[in-house]
Amino acid sequence: MRVNAYAAPSATEPLVPTTIERRDVGPSDVLIEIKYAGICHSDIHLVRGEWGPVTYPQVVGHEIVGIVSEVGAEVSKHQVGDRVGVGCLVNSCRECENCRAGMEQYCLHGSVGTYASVDRDGTITQGGYSTHVVVDENFVLRVPESIPFEKAAPLLCAGITTYSPLAHWNAGPGTRVAVVGMGGLGHMAVKIAHAMGANVTVLSQSLKKRDDGLALGADEYHATSDPDTFAALKNSFDLIVNTVSAPLEMDAYLGLLRLDGTLVNVGAPPEALPVHAFALANNRRSFAGSSIGGIPETQEMLDFCAEHGIAPETELISADYVNEAYERVLASDVRYRFVIDIATLA
Amino acid sequence: MRVNAYAAPSATEPLVPTTIERRDVGPSDVLIEIKYAGICHSDIHLVRGEWGPVTYPQVVGHEIVGIVSEVGAEVSKHQVGDRVGVGCLVNSCRECENCRAGMEQYCLHGSVGTYASVDRDGTITQGGYSTHVVVDENFVLRVPESIPFEKAAPLLCAGITTYSPLAHWNAGPGTRVAVVGMGGLGHMAVKIAHAMGANVTVLSQSLKKRDDGLALGADEYHATSDPDTFAALKNSFDLIVNTVSAPLEMDAYLGLLRLDGTLVNVGAPPEALPVHAFALANNRRSFAGSSIGGIPETQEMLDFCAEHGIAPETELISADYVNEAYERVLASDVRYRFVIDIATLA
Repeated sequence: MRVNAYAAPSATEPLVPTTIERRDVGPSDVLIEIKYAGICHSDIHLVRGEWGPVTYPQVVGHEIVGIVSEVGAEVSKHQVGDRVGVGCLVNSCRECENCRAGMEQYCLHGSVGTYASVDRDGTITQGGYSTHVVVDENFVLRVPESIPFEKAAPLLCAGITTYSPLAHWNAGPGTRVAVVGMGGLGHMAVKIAHAMGANVTVLSQSLKKRDDGLALGADEYHATSDPDTFAALKNSFDLIVNTVSAPLEMDAYLGLLRLDGTLVNVGAPPEALPVHAFALANNRRSFAGSSIGGIPETQEMLDFCAEHGIAPETELISADYVNEAYERVLASDVRYRFVIDIATLA
Repeated sequence: MRVNAYAAPSATEPLVPTTIERRDVGPSDVLIEIKYAGICHSDIHLVRGEWGPVTYPQVVGHEIVGIVSEVGAEVSKHQVGDRVGVGCLVNSCRECENCRAGMEQYCLHGSVGTYASVDRDGTITQGGYSTHVVVDENFVLRVPESIPFEKAAPLLCAGITTYSPLAHWNAGPGTRVAVVGMGGLGHMAVKIAHAMGANVTVLSQSLKKRDDGLALGADEYHATSDPDTFAALKNSFDLIVNTVSAPLEMDAYLGLLRLDGTLVNVGAPPEALPVHAFALANNRRSFAGSSIGGIPETQEMLDFCAEHGIAPETELISADYVNEAYERVLASDVRYRFVIDIATLA
């Protein structure tokens, strides 16, 4: 089956319309007619070869929602016509202790990413900037009816990436949570932490997005360019979710944690982050990492967002705007996530 | 009251016998006739000015056991004749949230160390290489009869420093714990983790102390100088207690943690430790710090050691051997803790 897609021909050229091959629907596969695909900063890093060599042409996009249009003979979880989503993972070994614990993102044999990964059949996976995708039913999520469909897409990466650490480190009533960075991930972290009942503080470089932050549920908003911020908020937070992918001065942020507090990185700057032992020993602090979320937790996140009426702030674009959108993402000029209307690719 | 002590006259001279002043016994104070004092690596760093400026002469030693010889009018916790101990702390604010939680070591207003700290009366605290010390009863521990007295001293620092993270991060049956470094702290971590029921692996530079490690309770012993160690033990441990104060290659050690594992530093190298975000994001790992323990937990540790028949391996020395002992500590030539017989100071 050949389907329309938007692909990067090389690391240095703009994305262009093309067609790609999708595999036949196997017994446990679901064919999805894609309706919307979010643009994640990772898409840009990857297609530009910044995370290592890429086999071109490459289609990216791992924030995918659509309608089931065909199911394999053994599929039991999804039916034709269902609203479904696909996030960053399309397969894993399903046998290691992490997979068995529903943490497929930490598969000890390497999970299969939605794009640019080697699939079990040896082909390279191709992402969601396309009209259709074939995915094993176990890696397909149900998208609740109450989430506006075009806004559901970014939940599959930006949503779960922030929900997972907030849930794991127990954000909730009585806890004080800081969100570092007010972009695609950060704005979702604010909404989710607020819905969980936590007291939420945004730590952003400037106060430019302060009104947005407070409107989305933040209780406080501070500029990290102001050194007073670090003095005023010392020993304050139970949890800091750092969504910034650039190397920050970690000791200063660690100093904001109270007893047994955790700073969790969800961004992944390639540079080493220097940390001093005393910054961790004071208040018995932890510096942690978290990577997206497993399939059961991603479903839990979608259901949570439906229940709490949470969806990202999005800007809907046509496929031919993708290259311009990339430049705006790099310039932090989007509030807060671009979503491609895949109808414009048909 | 003037008492005999061994003090450092400057950062560069050897320790010498001298006399120091101890304060009058206040209403809530306990006068302790010191019997034994352990030598901690910190003592050496501090008297040599490696951790900042020191007011000389300075007496160090924060692994202290002795007999109560006088109590203040309001003292209720200790009686004359009791076997007691003093560790790294002799005071704190007692009012901040950390003190109220029994975590005086993380006092938000700064706890008062047993030596080289500014006490509430403005004097500089003087440590345990002396015949007597006066300490507020709330910072004095009960030493159970079943712990050999000369071996009890190192529990007050080396014991609690390793017990606290092992207890906090739930070392026990079904958990796999690695101890990095087989020195004063490391050998106690092995004994305590084993007594808690954990499966224990020692990671030491060489296999020189392997027989000791296995005899003390380790299930496995590996040399970190062998690169195969890091491949063979990848994704293995729930908890790694790093007792080494030199900067290690943290990413390599983090790679040994399984899902939700924690590497906790109890040493405190002054250098920044570079950590890559991906090393934390894989398996949702944490890099944490821990500093000694609070007073309630220190008592808990002493009672635990008494119950399980745990005591450090020690070499008893006379006071005039202290300078030579320092050189041997620096050369890692002690199995595993020097203890000064304070009778030789009288």
